[in-house]
Amino acid sequence: MLGAGSWGTTFAKVIADAGHDVVLWARRAEVADEINAGHTNSAYLGDIELSDRIRATADIGSALADARVVVLAVPAQSLRANLARWRPLLREDVVLVSLMKGIEVETGLRMSQVIAEVAEVSQEQVAVVSGPNLAKEIAVGQPTATVVASAGGETAELIAELCANSYFRPYTNTDVVGVEIGGAIKNVIALAVGIADGQGLGDNSKASIITRGLAETSRLALAMGAELHTLSGLAGLGDLVATCASPLSRNRSFGRLLGEGLSLQEAITATTQTAEGVKTAAAVLELGRANGVDLPITQAVVAVLTDRLRVDELAGLLLARKRKTEGPAH
Amino acid sequence: MLGAGSWGTTFAKVIADAGHDVVLWARRAEVADEINAGHTNSAYLGDIELSDRIRATADIGSALADARVVVLAVPAQSLRANLARWRPLLREDVVLVSLMKGIEVETGLRMSQVIAEVAEVSQEQVAVVSGPNLAKEIAVGQPTATVVASAGGETAELIAELCANSYFRPYTNTDVVGVEIGGAIKNVIALAVGIADGQGLGDNSKASIITRGLAETSRLALAMGAELHTLSGLAGLGDLVATCASPLSRNRSFGRLLGEGLSLQEAITATTQTAEGVKTAAAVLELGRANGVDLPITQAVVAVLTDRLRVDELAGLLLARKRKTEGPAH
Repeated sequence: MLGAGSWGTTFAKVIADAGHDVVLWARRAEVADEINAGHTNSAYLGDIELSDRIRATADIGSALADARVVVLAVPAQSLRANLARWRPLLREDVVLVSLMKGIEVETGLRMSQVIAEVAEVSQEQVAVVSGPNLAKEIAVGQPTATVVASAGGETAELIAELCANSYFRPYTNTDVVGVEIGGAIKNVIALAVGIADGQGLGDNSKASIITRGLAETSRLALAMGAELHTLSGLAGLGDLVATCASPLSRNRSFGRLLGEGLSLQEAITATTQTAEGVKTAAAVLELGRANGVDLPITQAVVAVLTDRLRVDELAGLLLARKRKTEGPAH
Repeated sequence: MLGAGSWGTTFAKVIADAGHDVVLWARRAEVADEINAGHTNSAYLGDIELSDRIRATADIGSALADARVVVLAVPAQSLRANLARWRPLLREDVVLVSLMKGIEVETGLRMSQVIAEVAEVSQEQVAVVSGPNLAKEIAVGQPTATVVASAGGETAELIAELCANSYFRPYTNTDVVGVEIGGAIKNVIALAVGIADGQGLGDNSKASIITRGLAETSRLALAMGAELHTLSGLAGLGDLVATCASPLSRNRSFGRLLGEGLSLQEAITATTQTAEGVKTAAAVLELGRANGVDLPITQAVVAVLTDRLRVDELAGLLLARKRKTEGPAH
């Protein structure tokens, strides 16, 4: 497991609780030391106790030594540079698993595409995990379902076996495009819901944004070759609803600060980090243009982020669209 | 407007704020008096000020006199008896609009079917209004979208014109079955989400129930002739998400009490009324049987309501289903 943030550490715990030994690589040695000595990762998961099946290390060579399955949980935009460095340490028959949600800004590629390209492996050796998976709920053992997708059905089965335990329930899928597009855009939609929240709008308005957000996500995903049932499933609708409902969501919280009137820079300062949706929004909009798909909510979020739309204009803009018949083309 | 509860009074306000005069019938004379004298309906909407375009009356003859459009907002299970009494007072060319969500328990009929049968009008004279429409948010002027559906396209347009104002945005649709099935089952799904909530489960579990809840709603609606885009739209997904997110939802709140361990009778006593989902659940399950559609969440809710399933078994049951591939057939 490469990456000891909130989701990486939690997924290591999931695999360990399924009865497997896990080596967890942390960028900072003091995090690895804390996990080994005290079985906690307090910066991300407070005092939640981790299994002693997890051994942490800050030495990437030791982490990757002879690893058959490597799970990647690093920031989406740093994946390429990291993986290029780690490439020589990977086994030929490695299976690489992505926990990351986002689109590479420079290239417009999905995470699994970056992985296959940089690691020079086939798509059948890559899997992605996505669903309504708020890390802190899983870390305390709340029952959760997820989707494991891979172009290689056997690869998806292998990863599903590795992570299935009493509180974590994986479903397999071969529609990698649908799962990754659903995961990437939901961060952008969560920003829009957060903005509406910060403006003091209620559940009617937010439910409308979620509904139209899933519609635009589905249109783009279908144009890119995905299947509708994936977007209507746990990795589409499920992930979107969990993210938009939860006060734990970074993207929704970031949007809320914007909605309350903070500038982009002030929100970044206040949260000490940039939410992934902020980085991904323009890349998603570009994917829409390239595929001839209209993405009104993404477009509005990008306009807010680039100071071309005021937050108090966003809801009105989304509500005042001229079309008066609800249907498949909208 | 027949019915001066929370939604009926709010919808009267919506029409009045769109610039039309409204006669609002209240069952109790003191409610009508309060609305006429003080422009409030304090039992349902606190101190929210109603337009003076609304004239209230407890006299049904005066309310219906020469009315071209009659909006019905009475309890779903009392619709047949009420409408049978009012039938002789209706104009031949009346348009009847349903704000009600539910299935008639005795017959399994949708509200618009009951209306057409009892009032002896054509389906083209009936419209239904449904969407992410929490009454208290609309009453304070929060921007909200909705769906107006009728087998008669002109009827839908007429009602959309009547209610469109600066904060209320109607979209028309001809798929009455999809809109009504979406509205009826969401109350049952909201009970399940409420039960999970009362059990202390988090947003991952609740998002999974919402996702699978929309899937089973869609399966039933499609089997009954509805179109998928209606269920993916404001009256399906939108209404479900708003209801399940909101602390204002009666059905979710009722489910929460059951999840906390109250018996059905204790929950009815505590809320002083029975949530519509409680009455509708068994009728929905029966519709599923008649149409050969599996409805696992509805089935679990009915089992809880009839004491054949403990609330602490519900989430596990829904999460532990054997199917391991996520797809259109599930």
